Amino acid sequence: MIGEFDLIRKLSKMMDGPSPGVYRSIGDDAAVLEPPPGRLLFSSDMMVEGIHFRLDFSEPWEVGWKALAVNVSDIAAMGGTPLYAVVSLGVGRQDRPVSFYEEIYRGLNKAARRYGLSVVGGDTVRTEGPLVLDVSILGFAVSPVLRSGARNGDLLAVTGCLGASCAGLQWFLTKKTRHGPPYVDKAVKAHQRPQPRVKEAQAAVATGAVTALIDISDGLAGDLGHICEESGLGATIEASCIPVDASASRIASQVGASPVEWALRGGEDYELLMTVDPARGSLAKTAVENLGTRLTFIGEMTDKMSGVALVESGKWTLVERGGYTHF
Amino acid sequence: MIGEFDLIRKLSKMMDGPSPGVYRSIGDDAAVLEPPPGRLLFSSDMMVEGIHFRLDFSEPWEVGWKALAVNVSDIAAMGGTPLYAVVSLGVGRQDRPVSFYEEIYRGLNKAARRYGLSVVGGDTVRTEGPLVLDVSILGFAVSPVLRSGARNGDLLAVTGCLGASCAGLQWFLTKKTRHGPPYVDKAVKAHQRPQPRVKEAQAAVATGAVTALIDISDGLAGDLGHICEESGLGATIEASCIPVDASASRIASQVGASPVEWALRGGEDYELLMTVDPARGSLAKTAVENLGTRLTFIGEMTDKMSGVALVESGKWTLVERGGYTHF
Repeated sequence: MIGEFDLIRKLSKMMDGPSPGVYRSIGDDAAVLEPPPGRLLFSSDMMVEGIHFRLDFSEPWEVGWKALAVNVSDIAAMGGTPLYAVVSLGVGRQDRPVSFYEEIYRGLNKAARRYGLSVVGGDTVRTEGPLVLDVSILGFAVSPVLRSGARNGDLLAVTGCLGASCAGLQWFLTKKTRHGPPYVDKAVKAHQRPQPRVKEAQAAVATGAVTALIDISDGLAGDLGHICEESGLGATIEASCIPVDASASRIASQVGASPVEWALRGGEDYELLMTVDPARGSLAKTAVENLGTRLTFIGEMTDKMSGVALVESGKWTLVERGGYTHF
Repeated sequence: MIGEFDLIRKLSKMMDGPSPGVYRSIGDDAAVLEPPPGRLLFSSDMMVEGIHFRLDFSEPWEVGWKALAVNVSDIAAMGGTPLYAVVSLGVGRQDRPVSFYEEIYRGLNKAARRYGLSVVGGDTVRTEGPLVLDVSILGFAVSPVLRSGARNGDLLAVTGCLGASCAGLQWFLTKKTRHGPPYVDKAVKAHQRPQPRVKEAQAAVATGAVTALIDISDGLAGDLGHICEESGLGATIEASCIPVDASASRIASQVGASPVEWALRGGEDYELLMTVDPARGSLAKTAVENLGTRLTFIGEMTDKMSGVALVESGKWTLVERGGYTHF
């Protein structure tokens, strides 16, 4: 078995070299950084083999990509810019070669490059259990957008389409393969290689239209529930307006499921959900769509404290709090 | 089983309230922070049950204390001030009550309060494996001290005494109990509740005497090896000068081990090892000892690239690279 220091050395070589604002990276007790002026954003997300990913479904590099991307999405969800990350890796099963971990770091580095941030340190430890990957991220924003700023009457808008990530997972669980027609490939990629909406968030926020912002990691219903709770409001969604991904619709019809349910509760789409000042709604839409990403209005915030209501063919249903959860 | 959001909510209540520079803490996609001016320090350390701690040896609150303290020690090792931490918790065995995790967070909070930092976020996930606790820490320093700044002829100095932490662990492994005479209690506490030397590092650095700095987590030999490697130098240590902890000496004589070996290779002392400009050595000593902590000179840096040499009764031995490692 390779030693800890050898592994760290090998893995640190996988990472891109010095970046602006990084005075000292991997190799000291802590990284030394000089971020741009603004408020700092700080969060972490842990992924565990068998719970958050399976290595018969994901390529090792995709595990690395996703571990970083879900953290980038947390920064996007504040309207911020990702800057630096540290990565803690718990090395599980001893029969995996070093090249396996190199592949994970290759995926991390690929995502870091894509989103313009630097991996500046971390930890590598042994575990008797499953592989664990915990990423902590630092970003900055001049005016971070919280979950708590929504106002009664604000419009609800989502970027992109929903349900594809859940569809990709359900395809794999049902068919025991990640392969299939092109729409399956699209859904599987949505699950394995999420594309956090950093630029879209920044563009929308820059218009001054966005009052609250969150990324859709737990499903539309659950994440809208967080905005409602933090803002002390309710919300209604028009079911027919939810931008369900076409690949999700096709896979759902094959496995006998509802794609709208996947959008509401499937999770891991890493699209943005925002509440928007109605007077500036079209500004936000134009700003996001100029980047080639759809922005769809799906409902509005209400003063009812009764949670999230779904309107479907004129019928109202109260959507249960909480989306997909790994617990 | 309690759900993820309930656990996060319960645990976030364990944490102290708002702190200076914290605009938004647990409860949004990321914490929003405004650190003081200076360079930022960023690092992480992961602890895994069965590898880094055992729950038949540690109290749950001690696991939380140690997980935060070892990260604080990384900031101390740069001469910095700890500011904020995020904590990712992988919840293992399902038969542990919520109160068990509350105890871990109580220990985290206790250490946070002791060292003046705020726990501002994190993640809580499930794992089929052992309990995992990963802490990432942010600190700041006006002039961080790296491992690479040592010069030929600089003096080597360590804070406090070494070997107690390893002695505490060895006592437990040999005697199958953490209890014993007061010196055993002291050694066990050194292992379970490390006290990172934040103020001592700052005081020594403020004298302008310190050229390189590291915390002793892998054992004196291993961590001095890191300074040698990063500074492109060698070092000699006078064995009789190493400040071996009295409890380590007593326990070593009982279990038939060498306390100097524990100091050299035992690790987890979380004392500081510094290289000091000889002209200002007494300034550094006075600054540290004014805080009630011993600073002991144990050798010097040499221009030999041959690693770390130990001088014992006039005999030289080359100390093997690498201290205690969990791999």
